[in-house]
Amino acid sequence: MGLDIQAYMQTLGQQAKQASRALSRADTNAKNHALRIIASMIRANSDQLKQQNKLDMEAGEMKGLDSALLDRLELTDSRIEAMAEGLEQIASLADPIGEISNMHFRPSGIQLGQMRVPLGVIGIIYESRPNVTADAAGLCLKSGNAVILRGGSEAIHSNQAIATCIRQGLEQVGLPSQAVQVVETTDRQAVGELITSTDYVDVIVPRGGKNLIERISSDAKVPVIKHLDGICHVYIDKAADLDMAEDIAFNAKCHRYGVCNAMETLLIHSDVASQILPRLASRYKTESVELRGCERTQSILPEAVAATETDWDTEYLAPILSIRIVDDLEQAMDHIHRHSSSHTETIVTEDYASARHFLAEVDSSSVMVNASTRFADGFEYGLGAEIGISTDKIHARGPVGLNGLTSQKWIVLGSGQIRH
Amino acid sequence: MGLDIQAYMQTLGQQAKQASRALSRADTNAKNHALRIIASMIRANSDQLKQQNKLDMEAGEMKGLDSALLDRLELTDSRIEAMAEGLEQIASLADPIGEISNMHFRPSGIQLGQMRVPLGVIGIIYESRPNVTADAAGLCLKSGNAVILRGGSEAIHSNQAIATCIRQGLEQVGLPSQAVQVVETTDRQAVGELITSTDYVDVIVPRGGKNLIERISSDAKVPVIKHLDGICHVYIDKAADLDMAEDIAFNAKCHRYGVCNAMETLLIHSDVASQILPRLASRYKTESVELRGCERTQSILPEAVAATETDWDTEYLAPILSIRIVDDLEQAMDHIHRHSSSHTETIVTEDYASARHFLAEVDSSSVMVNASTRFADGFEYGLGAEIGISTDKIHARGPVGLNGLTSQKWIVLGSGQIRH
Repeated sequence: MGLDIQAYMQTLGQQAKQASRALSRADTNAKNHALRIIASMIRANSDQLKQQNKLDMEAGEMKGLDSALLDRLELTDSRIEAMAEGLEQIASLADPIGEISNMHFRPSGIQLGQMRVPLGVIGIIYESRPNVTADAAGLCLKSGNAVILRGGSEAIHSNQAIATCIRQGLEQVGLPSQAVQVVETTDRQAVGELITSTDYVDVIVPRGGKNLIERISSDAKVPVIKHLDGICHVYIDKAADLDMAEDIAFNAKCHRYGVCNAMETLLIHSDVASQILPRLASRYKTESVELRGCERTQSILPEAVAATETDWDTEYLAPILSIRIVDDLEQAMDHIHRHSSSHTETIVTEDYASARHFLAEVDSSSVMVNASTRFADGFEYGLGAEIGISTDKIHARGPVGLNGLTSQKWIVLGSGQIRH
Repeated sequence: MGLDIQAYMQTLGQQAKQASRALSRADTNAKNHALRIIASMIRANSDQLKQQNKLDMEAGEMKGLDSALLDRLELTDSRIEAMAEGLEQIASLADPIGEISNMHFRPSGIQLGQMRVPLGVIGIIYESRPNVTADAAGLCLKSGNAVILRGGSEAIHSNQAIATCIRQGLEQVGLPSQAVQVVETTDRQAVGELITSTDYVDVIVPRGGKNLIERISSDAKVPVIKHLDGICHVYIDKAADLDMAEDIAFNAKCHRYGVCNAMETLLIHSDVASQILPRLASRYKTESVELRGCERTQSILPEAVAATETDWDTEYLAPILSIRIVDDLEQAMDHIHRHSSSHTETIVTEDYASARHFLAEVDSSSVMVNASTRFADGFEYGLGAEIGISTDKIHARGPVGLNGLTSQKWIVLGSGQIRH
């Protein structure tokens, strides 16, 4: 297309950095007002959004995209309304910016604390769902960050139409429209430029399949907040309440299959395996869940197929469950240590010491006692909305809400103190 | 040397990761006991340390290292004692690991909070000072992390000798000696392996000159907590108490020159420039500070040489100061926005609104009112010791103490909750 992608992305970066300064000083009212106006713009322009979305849908059908992808791509009336409501919900969240914590006097007489501030410029790289454009822009706006959005090429018309609503809303309240920019080229080089643009971009949040995220993480120079697998475990301890264990193990697998916080592997203490496994197997049978077990599991459940080493490292995202019987808590934690993706793990137990060990020693973004892994979620955690779930340990861990898009700087109030 | 560096570094990484698990569960007493024993080992082996250090000093002299470098390299009795005391101070700090914060009930009935946990494995890359070996090992040990230390090749014998004391201390209290490993090869490839070892290393902390840090940041695949320049500003507002302003501007420049939190550029409101500048110039003259000013500064202080654009972007680390007169707070903040390294900036003012704007809008790791920039320091902030000062916004910002080497995971206590 003859466009110099590098220069184009640099311009976007400069504009975003410029806009981020104005946004970082925008007061709560201005930000909330903008979010509500954008919501009303999205509602008012729903015909236009559907029209543009139709162009993407038609192009997608021509290209032969599969039906799951086309479904994610489609903008229906209810999805447009959900986008608008999402923005209004973000407007109703508390403003994290400017929060001052832990102010205290030091022996020198200075008063020291920390103030929550925006990160600056966020780059978001995502795939087919156009609603991410509104969600991500809303979260970045509320947290005082400028954002550069790079959606999937298959959603380019839909994303541009949503971006137009956002720009108009920002302009109406006097915020810089360049606080939210959608990359207008589908050239892949744009992603490469964005993730190496350390002069202008403070953090990259990739959302999408594991391949996309691995590629971005490996090539990025800008820090990345990322989510890889969700290989979540439930461990049923020998001291578990077995009714509770049955409910949690069933819920964690069957509430939804295609989500990152679904259980993929069930670990069971050998003392209770023969009691709980047949009960669980009959529950899973009602949902046609395929069971893959270790040898001991197979001796209790002959219908289970043999689990291979690969099974322990697989995120099925499907009605499939691998099951392993272990001899004690240590073995369960060893298995988790080796095979977990550090997303979410649960122990079911009534034993105080086992619960305490599990909580302290399992190194995952969410560690639970007697609750379904399905609770590991921004809404359930009260973050209001999430930009993603981080399986990293640096900066943000687990569900990432507004605070994950902020930083804390030190502030010092003095009365003329000097160092001696 | 025939050693396969890649395989060697991978072995160190595997051993560190293994050790990190034991260290993450070590209780406070064991960690503190280890720190105190290591301190006493260092004292008991001071002759041995000085002997090994002498090998490094002799090799350094042969190689023609300059006297500043040789000075940093030397281990004297008082420096050995300071290392031991530093470890004892770390032992007396509160243990950050296991701290649970913000436990609260969610409408679903789950109780949600966050638990502070170690990052895992820290890689530290540093230059000539052998005392970093003890300091960094101490901070990592206390925060439950395993560490791989890669010191300067010129300090290899000193670092190995210190590492021997550390290993013996760890073994005495039953902690894995591989929790602290010193890279035994001086081959540069080892650094390249360490900073790309995403399977085993959770974060890299480079300590040293700007070139080292830029090279590491640009090549690393592992997240880096880094400190680049310290181009710190003091802004004397029109509403400043001029006596206070004089003291702060003098202290921020002259208390120590070679430190990152020293002031490099002084900004002065035009309304008070002609009053304060001559007073300050005579103070600076007593310390032979070279003044470089904008045109307006030169019209007040004819002795000041003309500042060039380069001056505003230079960290002198020397008795040199650049001075610019500005017309208002906005201009001062614009200058800071363009030229600061985001380390530390101070406003001197008695005006409420100016103080509040400066605090909110200046985007640096420490932002101060009426205090010397020299306070931006782990000890002054009560962190006890610092592994470095981060000028990044991600994860850790400003002085990085024990908490900067930790992460927070979500914990959930339930009583059988499932998602509906």
